[in-house]
Amino acid sequence: MKDAKEGKSYVTPWEVFGDVNYSKLITEFGVEEISDELKKRIEKITGKHFMLDRKIFFAHRDLKWLIDEYSKGNKFFLYTGRSPSGPVHLGHLMTWQFTKFLQDAFDVELWFQFPDEEKFLFKKDLTYEEAQKNLNENVLDVIALGFNPKKTHFIVNTKHADLMYGEACKVAKKITYSMVKSSFGFDDSANIGQIFYTSMQAVPAFLPSVLNGKKIPCLIPHAIDQDPHFRLTRDILPKLGHHKPASIQCSFLPPLTGANGKMSSSKHDTAIYTTDNAKEVEHKIKKYAFSGGKDTLEEHRRHGGNPYIDVSFQYLRHMFEPDDKKLRDIHNAYKSGAMTSGELKQITIDKINAFLKEHQKKRELAIKKVDSFMYKK
Amino acid sequence: MKDAKEGKSYVTPWEVFGDVNYSKLITEFGVEEISDELKKRIEKITGKHFMLDRKIFFAHRDLKWLIDEYSKGNKFFLYTGRSPSGPVHLGHLMTWQFTKFLQDAFDVELWFQFPDEEKFLFKKDLTYEEAQKNLNENVLDVIALGFNPKKTHFIVNTKHADLMYGEACKVAKKITYSMVKSSFGFDDSANIGQIFYTSMQAVPAFLPSVLNGKKIPCLIPHAIDQDPHFRLTRDILPKLGHHKPASIQCSFLPPLTGANGKMSSSKHDTAIYTTDNAKEVEHKIKKYAFSGGKDTLEEHRRHGGNPYIDVSFQYLRHMFEPDDKKLRDIHNAYKSGAMTSGELKQITIDKINAFLKEHQKKRELAIKKVDSFMYKK
Repeated sequence: MKDAKEGKSYVTPWEVFGDVNYSKLITEFGVEEISDELKKRIEKITGKHFMLDRKIFFAHRDLKWLIDEYSKGNKFFLYTGRSPSGPVHLGHLMTWQFTKFLQDAFDVELWFQFPDEEKFLFKKDLTYEEAQKNLNENVLDVIALGFNPKKTHFIVNTKHADLMYGEACKVAKKITYSMVKSSFGFDDSANIGQIFYTSMQAVPAFLPSVLNGKKIPCLIPHAIDQDPHFRLTRDILPKLGHHKPASIQCSFLPPLTGANGKMSSSKHDTAIYTTDNAKEVEHKIKKYAFSGGKDTLEEHRRHGGNPYIDVSFQYLRHMFEPDDKKLRDIHNAYKSGAMTSGELKQITIDKINAFLKEHQKKRELAIKKVDSFMYKK
Repeated sequence: MKDAKEGKSYVTPWEVFGDVNYSKLITEFGVEEISDELKKRIEKITGKHFMLDRKIFFAHRDLKWLIDEYSKGNKFFLYTGRSPSGPVHLGHLMTWQFTKFLQDAFDVELWFQFPDEEKFLFKKDLTYEEAQKNLNENVLDVIALGFNPKKTHFIVNTKHADLMYGEACKVAKKITYSMVKSSFGFDDSANIGQIFYTSMQAVPAFLPSVLNGKKIPCLIPHAIDQDPHFRLTRDILPKLGHHKPASIQCSFLPPLTGANGKMSSSKHDTAIYTTDNAKEVEHKIKKYAFSGGKDTLEEHRRHGGNPYIDVSFQYLRHMFEPDDKKLRDIHNAYKSGAMTSGELKQITIDKINAFLKEHQKKRELAIKKVDSFMYKK
């Protein structure tokens, strides 16, 4: 790990630090930027989505191939997931909201993995029981987003291991310790569950093909930090006679504390949870949301604010203001100094609270729906 | 691995080579020899069994504690297993026959593990499908030995992974790569399934306690080469609030080619399979069974044979002549030269064929019983 104090940034599946430079990530991770041409091809099928349009989802692997297959009538399935590390925060919802859009637009199946062992294996102090509690809470947030239960299959690694472990072993036989060491930076003090884990994350990318007895293309929408897993998955799957999964990657919703790194379930002041009440949201945004405004009102009016580094503005851009015209107006007003940081924060607070009010209602109703989403063996 | 050419011996869970020195193994593995006192205590409960009496089962860990618990009314369960690497040979049956004796004598449950992924992960050329075929064949041999289906539970790692994988992760979190490297001699080219595997082998030692919600002592009868797995298991289980499993270890049935190493499913001329017909057994013993006799009949009559290195005699001693007096008579007749190698071989052929005739009948009948032995989730 590079030293945080050097002011550099790093991105691994377990940690994101620093002012993430996405162009650099594209080079580092070896993903492809989504070209305007590809974007237009997708939009022709799906209609517009602001997350694609604004390059929140900015990179991909093999997406062109996937769209080619789709255009030939060869439907894909979607695969994404949630590793239950703690409560769900707004940053998590971003990928899933876009996934739901894709599911509806393409009318395809979604396999949603809950690797309930992952964070238990990677976090020294997280107990197995806590991980299970997180799992039981986290499923509610996913269901609350309105996925179609008939086309959405939850798989929980420990509970569905009788479907997954044998398949994971097929993947594992092709991955050496050297390979995971260089992909994830393990040293010999890594536990043997951590070392094996990536093979379980690979499984949903081909499990539907195994269960259906035919090769089905797979598209994985995910945050860029998960790419090392799927790069390994893509290396191995053709050796097992499966397609390489395609993927589409998004940037992170910045943490409250500033437009670098990502929100973290375990750092309380950096994130807004889906279970936060209106007062908590107001308090967090007012107290912690990093502002792009100037130190004094006078200065602000004269020089204007910086929406690029303003967390409230970024929340609107990433999630809460899908309307481009409205977003541009806010952008311009803030940049010119006509809108104060306090006013911008209030817009964001209102948007988040309106969203969470609905989400929390749906989350309550989700309790009764869990069983209908679980994949039945 | 030490070099075979050095004429030394080595024992790992995956390979046994050379003239195994059991006293040395006791020191190397750190197991305890079964004392006459402990043997008598066991025999008081179980009655005599020639495999214990003749020190075929010669070493243990915590067996005294287990018998103490049993004497206080705290019943244990038995755990043994079969990794389906190929066809079952006579050497495999030895442990299981003794396990059946213990099950009946102590009237206890037996958990029988089939780690159907293990050999797939460890043998480069073994396919997953072949391993499954081996599994389906191997279960028949176990059932044919007459275990009580009401008290015997088969668990197949891939099929019962929904019960096992989560528990294996709890074990895995406590085992570092350094630990498995030194226990099993892995290097960085080991695949990540091999590295994880030992945590799956640990699970049956405490799974019945998890399922029953109370700590039940465990006794593992096994061949000494599996000890590195269970030594790790014993280190970890108390950290998870479980008992250390006790174990009782046997020596190997020598391969046909001589009283060193062990029989191997993958070396055809070294082993008699449970599916061999009478002619094949006769041929293998006559052609390959290493003889302790002299080069000429005249010399043999004068100097006598060496039963210690004679494979036929060792088969009688390990498995096929439970009657001590009869065995002693054969021993003395052979040693004095009164019995020829041919005569000794014929006795062994007849004994093995009589056993296999019955075993193969029971093996056929076992096909219909498989389901009743599988642990129902």
